[in-house]
Amino acid sequence: MESFTSYNPTRLEFGKGKVKGLVKDAREHGTKALVIIGKGSVKRNGVLDEVLASLQSAGVAYEIFEGIRANPIYEDADAAIAKAKEFGAEMLVAVGGGSVIDTAKAVAMGFYQDHSVWDFYVKKASAPEKALPLFVVLTLAATGTEMNPFTVLQNDQSGQKYGFGNPLLYPKVAYLDPTYTMTVPANQTAYGIADLLAHTLEQYFDPSDSPLSNAFAADVISQALHYGPVAIKEPESYEARANIMWLATIALNGTLKAGKRSGDWGVHAYEHSLSVLFDVPHGAGLSAVYPAWMRFFQSRLEEKLAYLSQRCFGSDQGADFIDGLEQFYRQIGTPVRLSELGIGDDKADAILANLAANKATGAFFSMGAEEHKGILRLMW
Amino acid sequence: MESFTSYNPTRLEFGKGKVKGLVKDAREHGTKALVIIGKGSVKRNGVLDEVLASLQSAGVAYEIFEGIRANPIYEDADAAIAKAKEFGAEMLVAVGGGSVIDTAKAVAMGFYQDHSVWDFYVKKASAPEKALPLFVVLTLAATGTEMNPFTVLQNDQSGQKYGFGNPLLYPKVAYLDPTYTMTVPANQTAYGIADLLAHTLEQYFDPSDSPLSNAFAADVISQALHYGPVAIKEPESYEARANIMWLATIALNGTLKAGKRSGDWGVHAYEHSLSVLFDVPHGAGLSAVYPAWMRFFQSRLEEKLAYLSQRCFGSDQGADFIDGLEQFYRQIGTPVRLSELGIGDDKADAILANLAANKATGAFFSMGAEEHKGILRLMW
Repeated sequence: MESFTSYNPTRLEFGKGKVKGLVKDAREHGTKALVIIGKGSVKRNGVLDEVLASLQSAGVAYEIFEGIRANPIYEDADAAIAKAKEFGAEMLVAVGGGSVIDTAKAVAMGFYQDHSVWDFYVKKASAPEKALPLFVVLTLAATGTEMNPFTVLQNDQSGQKYGFGNPLLYPKVAYLDPTYTMTVPANQTAYGIADLLAHTLEQYFDPSDSPLSNAFAADVISQALHYGPVAIKEPESYEARANIMWLATIALNGTLKAGKRSGDWGVHAYEHSLSVLFDVPHGAGLSAVYPAWMRFFQSRLEEKLAYLSQRCFGSDQGADFIDGLEQFYRQIGTPVRLSELGIGDDKADAILANLAANKATGAFFSMGAEEHKGILRLMW
Repeated sequence: MESFTSYNPTRLEFGKGKVKGLVKDAREHGTKALVIIGKGSVKRNGVLDEVLASLQSAGVAYEIFEGIRANPIYEDADAAIAKAKEFGAEMLVAVGGGSVIDTAKAVAMGFYQDHSVWDFYVKKASAPEKALPLFVVLTLAATGTEMNPFTVLQNDQSGQKYGFGNPLLYPKVAYLDPTYTMTVPANQTAYGIADLLAHTLEQYFDPSDSPLSNAFAADVISQALHYGPVAIKEPESYEARANIMWLATIALNGTLKAGKRSGDWGVHAYEHSLSVLFDVPHGAGLSAVYPAWMRFFQSRLEEKLAYLSQRCFGSDQGADFIDGLEQFYRQIGTPVRLSELGIGDDKADAILANLAANKATGAFFSMGAEEHKGILRLMW
């Protein structure tokens, strides 16, 4: 076991109707909130109305910043920061999925700065010293950002998609009502599942020996394999939606990192090039990269793959985990080949150039030109 | 899945040498600390010296309150509170195992009161509104109190052993250095393992259906069965000590409670009578009660026992888990019969009377006179 720090001050309120707690929680942090939302699905399904009603009950005035897109860009964060300053916001309420929450985290720290928030992501600015309190109402089970201190934004001009983490960015409270995810369409549900699986695998493949975290990772994967297809077939199954939602949170709230160093995160680095070049959904990119990445590094992963094969598919062959996972991705309808993402092989050079420019690599499984190319070949 | 809250603001610093971080952490909370220790083992093994050196480096003056016994009593907490007040302590540093930490939690909240701290435990006083910041240096893997808001004290006069929980009682930081547990004798190591297993089982037997928490519980138990005997045979094995230490923390830091209601806690209620009447070590009492409790309620536990049998012993017979666990207790040397605790059957009436007086029961598996008696019969 490696030395580690376990710390997570976010309070998670999980279950039907939990957003009502926002009334009391918001009241403790002031009287003015900027509410941040995406393209409007939370308006159509009634979730936003519930949140706004809670704020009204709490005597909290609000303004709404709308239009965060799926792969969020720093310009939207900067625009929301300007609005928050003008309004004099004392807190932020993010209502949506990972892109909305990641943008809200950028707003939380950018609120106290004069420079563009992008400067944090490219390490041009030193670490923030304060941030607005952030409340999160989650509507999509996927990224885990609701209970961690990380945010990922992208810069379309420079072709960069970068993450940033700081303890100030833990949400104060995250409200997770599984019924809010029942209207998520099948493809987005599947991408979310691919995302939570990728988070679990990135940490699991950290070669540090942490037996309990490894066992927990196998549990998360095995239950995602079980509940994923149910959530897609029966979108209104509370049990399936609740289990997937909790799996997505625990996949990246620190639980699976105990006794490990950092996780590898090479697949994420690789996928960021696909997102930034072709605007593919993050989870869809991850399901395309992971089987290829595992096959490329298979000889170094043998023991870890064998454990997952055994725990998830009752097999003792490591390769069966790769095949089984790929088959699962197909079953739930998330891409496993670049062609399924609409990316033809004429794009190979552009992908390799972006990977090289961003020095896409993992912490333990180093990638350079040769690895980038080898993995790409396995994705056609 | 039941609705639940997941919240744990304690920062856990896990690994060799982590206590050095106390220098920076303590400095943020003032200049005067009351250090609370047990019967002196931390003096003999050098742990206290390391802690005091850190406080000195931090420019924090300290006084030491010494002598907390294994089953801690409220009078010691009241005496430590008096000393903390006289000294003007701004923070507490608990160096020891569960009894020392539970006492320190009592001191943290009692510091701001004029009444005996026992009033909190018997609900004579209303909930505390503030508490001193508490730092914890753990030297015994067992109770999990280092990362939770609970404290248990006893009152020898009234024959009561009661728990109390409040979010103010989460330690600020807990330093877990597995090397500090290498001098723990075999019997205490075993009692600690029995304690962590009992915490896991109390939550696991909550009948709410929470698949991930159930799987995590099976992992914790299965790894305790693996690393327990190693820690006892090779007391200086870092891997064994580290794994047991982390298992003990995670068994009661909220991780296993997600999606459940409360846990049952009937076995704990039962064991408290043994502790208070005969001053038996808590873990030793738990290993004696658990097999009897499972056998008594076996027909209602069938499905849950079968899952543990499968995950821990590769069997599909629920009874095999009970037998296997009992055999494991014997292997590591923690009692499974009252006679091994030096309690003869002439004490039956006293035990039953104490159980009745304290209304010892579980949240889901109700116990009254008949159950108390039936379980007792299975412990001879």
